[in-house]
Amino acid sequence: MAKEHCVPCRGGESALDPVELNALLPLTPEWHVDDSRGFATLTRTFKVKGFAGALKLANQIGLAADEVDHHPELRVEYGRLTVTWWTHTIPGLHRNDFIMAARTDSLFENLR
Amino acid sequence: MAKEHCVPCRGGESALDPVELNALLPLTPEWHVDDSRGFATLTRTFKVKGFAGALKLANQIGLAADEVDHHPELRVEYGRLTVTWWTHTIPGLHRNDFIMAARTDSLFENLR
Repeated sequence: MAKEHCVPCRGGESALDPVELNALLPLTPEWHVDDSRGFATLTRTFKVKGFAGALKLANQIGLAADEVDHHPELRVEYGRLTVTWWTHTIPGLHRNDFIMAARTDSLFENLR
Repeated sequence: MAKEHCVPCRGGESALDPVELNALLPLTPEWHVDDSRGFATLTRTFKVKGFAGALKLANQIGLAADEVDHHPELRVEYGRLTVTWWTHTIPGLHRNDFIMAARTDSLFENLR
């Protein structure tokens, strides 16, 4: 899934329906859907080394995000990085968010 | 204030009392005290250019934080960076947090 292409979002996209969502969730098993913002987001906290480790992963995610012009929210703390993806134009979850979650996993795997 | 030295926190530090807090707050006028975590933190949101601008400032804050081994929480978003300082061993606000807030302001000013 990490190698799948993101579709440009130009507005008017609709959120994944529950069937689509349930089909995608097993493909990113370390991520969970969080509704605390009032819409669905996909989030994962990565354990990393110190503050520099969190920033290192954050910078790599930033490059991947700029490439496709689709950006997450990152919470940088000492020893961990929390990554939250959603599609602002919906707002909610699009297939793109799962693609980017899978890419984030790859970046993390290659970091260690 | 940005040039003042941080005192190492080894535990047992006490939070600033209201008189001390009110004396320090005018020195960092762009920051506000936030109690939403259940203890006082000092927070400011910086407007920056894109996601890369947020990460650029985040990286500089990371270097300054590692220098004194006192780390904030950063929220990286497209176009803005929210920085939150507090002293984990209290938990709450210490003079160090105001020193680091002032240093963060300097880093931001030099970024532009």
